[in-house]
Amino acid sequence: MAFFFERLKTDGSTQARLGRVSTDHGTFLTPAFMPVGTLGTVKSLTPEELVGVGVEILLANTYHLYLRPGHETIERLGGLHRFIHWERPILTDSGGYQIFSLGDLRKISEEGVTFQSHLDGSLHFLTPEKVVEIQRALGVDIAMVLDECIPYPSPYEYAKVSTERTGRWARRSLQALREGDPALFGIVQGGVFRDLREESARQLRDLGFSGFALGGLSVGEPRNLMLEILEWTTPLLPEDAPRYLMGVGTPRDILDAIMQGIDLFDCVLPTRNARNGSLFTSYGRLSIKQARYAQDDRPIEEGCGCYTCRHYSRAYLRHLYLSKEILSSRLNTIHNLFYYLGLLKKIRAAIDGGTLLDLQRDFLRQWDADDDAKEIAET
Amino acid sequence: MAFFFERLKTDGSTQARLGRVSTDHGTFLTPAFMPVGTLGTVKSLTPEELVGVGVEILLANTYHLYLRPGHETIERLGGLHRFIHWERPILTDSGGYQIFSLGDLRKISEEGVTFQSHLDGSLHFLTPEKVVEIQRALGVDIAMVLDECIPYPSPYEYAKVSTERTGRWARRSLQALREGDPALFGIVQGGVFRDLREESARQLRDLGFSGFALGGLSVGEPRNLMLEILEWTTPLLPEDAPRYLMGVGTPRDILDAIMQGIDLFDCVLPTRNARNGSLFTSYGRLSIKQARYAQDDRPIEEGCGCYTCRHYSRAYLRHLYLSKEILSSRLNTIHNLFYYLGLLKKIRAAIDGGTLLDLQRDFLRQWDADDDAKEIAET
Repeated sequence: MAFFFERLKTDGSTQARLGRVSTDHGTFLTPAFMPVGTLGTVKSLTPEELVGVGVEILLANTYHLYLRPGHETIERLGGLHRFIHWERPILTDSGGYQIFSLGDLRKISEEGVTFQSHLDGSLHFLTPEKVVEIQRALGVDIAMVLDECIPYPSPYEYAKVSTERTGRWARRSLQALREGDPALFGIVQGGVFRDLREESARQLRDLGFSGFALGGLSVGEPRNLMLEILEWTTPLLPEDAPRYLMGVGTPRDILDAIMQGIDLFDCVLPTRNARNGSLFTSYGRLSIKQARYAQDDRPIEEGCGCYTCRHYSRAYLRHLYLSKEILSSRLNTIHNLFYYLGLLKKIRAAIDGGTLLDLQRDFLRQWDADDDAKEIAET
Repeated sequence: MAFFFERLKTDGSTQARLGRVSTDHGTFLTPAFMPVGTLGTVKSLTPEELVGVGVEILLANTYHLYLRPGHETIERLGGLHRFIHWERPILTDSGGYQIFSLGDLRKISEEGVTFQSHLDGSLHFLTPEKVVEIQRALGVDIAMVLDECIPYPSPYEYAKVSTERTGRWARRSLQALREGDPALFGIVQGGVFRDLREESARQLRDLGFSGFALGGLSVGEPRNLMLEILEWTTPLLPEDAPRYLMGVGTPRDILDAIMQGIDLFDCVLPTRNARNGSLFTSYGRLSIKQARYAQDDRPIEEGCGCYTCRHYSRAYLRHLYLSKEILSSRLNTIHNLFYYLGLLKKIRAAIDGGTLLDLQRDFLRQWDADDDAKEIAET
């Protein structure tokens, strides 16, 4: 599949870049945020609604789609885009993170990983080659290599062994590529150890992937450590390829990472929080279940242009949430994704206009400084 | 509130009527089907989607909205239409059916009914006057009187006592009406007893309501008995007021009832079935979870013009259903309501064109004769 990354602009005072990725399913601008559509649907929304809030690229999950409904079924039905009625680019995570989250249910060897399905306990064996094959069958635009996501904390010795194996798997993944396959991204691992991170980044760079992801972050390590790891790693990655920080994060995390040269993000935060009644605003998050909103006629955020804020009061949203109505998840998800995608749009405009530091200052002035801490407590 | 019913056409060979109801929130054609929006939302859909599938009038529930979020809250927020972002007519059921479903949790007296909330066990006392007051606060277009819904089967003696009390309550409800209140519909009760049904119908007719409902049907009695009760009752109701068969029913029930002169319906069947993966087609119902649809690339029904059928395969809908994805409820509900509203539209056109018997013949030829029996088994 076609894949092309252009740097349109580089911020003078930070590492931030404005870019454009071209694929067979159209282009998207970076920095970009990908909503998570694990099973081929961003929970509660239609593709038209995703487009409506500004989504340009979607993330789905190889592990989940492999188990259900199966990549062969999706291939027979014309590929993932057609199956889920989404015509724009799709990136699939490899399933590394999900498989290694299974704990005792999986066993790793040089060849690959054996695991039990979280659905029915059936045994499965995935190799780097097989994971490329599955993503080929899905027909996605961007595929991720199979990696081992190292838990936090892990001892240095284990991180070293694991990162080296992930490196060998990355090489095998590239070798498994065929003409017409999705663009393949490598995943930098190395835990929280500088030499391992650097070694992993150099190795992947030399192998020559279409893009480079940073994995194993946002898994419980302190926020400052995550930013430090970005500082070590990003400069070692090629400038002419997109950089993807997997599974991150809060609006503040995303802004900070963009300033360190990251181009691509995915996270369940806006969608999962929405279903839990936690709504993003410029001032931090708002928990819609609180009694103080029972008769509050205002929208979630004054001036917000999303469908939810244009038509519904906090009082109605609270009523839907407490009544466990499906519409609650929908309206909240629309708002939170509109917020995230809107923030990314503003950031891109600021990079373009050379005003990213101003944006950061305004953002931090408004944003509740305690919010990131609350986040950890609430979710 | 303004309320006006015009008979536009009467079918020559059946009792069916084509009509138009005018309210302060616009007009709607009859026969009409009202989707059930118990708590101020038709589960999983937005108002725009309801309009998109052809909904012209919505049903909500007095009992549920009284308990949560409370009619006073809704009144303070500008009324139910504004609260739920629905600009067209709304009818509220009185809550009689819900309260009498509570069994041991309610106690009836001449004055009214005491019951415990199904939410928190709190004690409440509702009278016919209070129920009018609640619906006034909600600001709906059509209000229903408080009635006692007699269970099936019930002994004659109980049905007689109850029906007479419901009659006295109907009179009190009318007396409680003020200038500018919603149009008020009486509810014919009488169980399955001809003399009680007839007496109830005559009494309500003489009291002079804006419309007349038949209650206490579709509560477990045989289908033929329900149709027989319609035959006894409908001729006694005024021709120049709408007739509403509460809580009914299957497509076949609705068609039969329209041919006996019924104008208005509500039922949870299309929406609840949708959430359970049971989808309406011209041939009967289709259970989307079945393995035979796992790789079926066809829409639910070929030729259906609904959003779901235009974009999604049975295979994807099955995948969403088995994965318990929220989008499953949405796409299925859109299809089922499109089917119901489309059937009503065809019936209205057939009354207008004098071809209702042809429509009935074609409907019965296609419709799976066993479907109504299966329905009872599955839901």
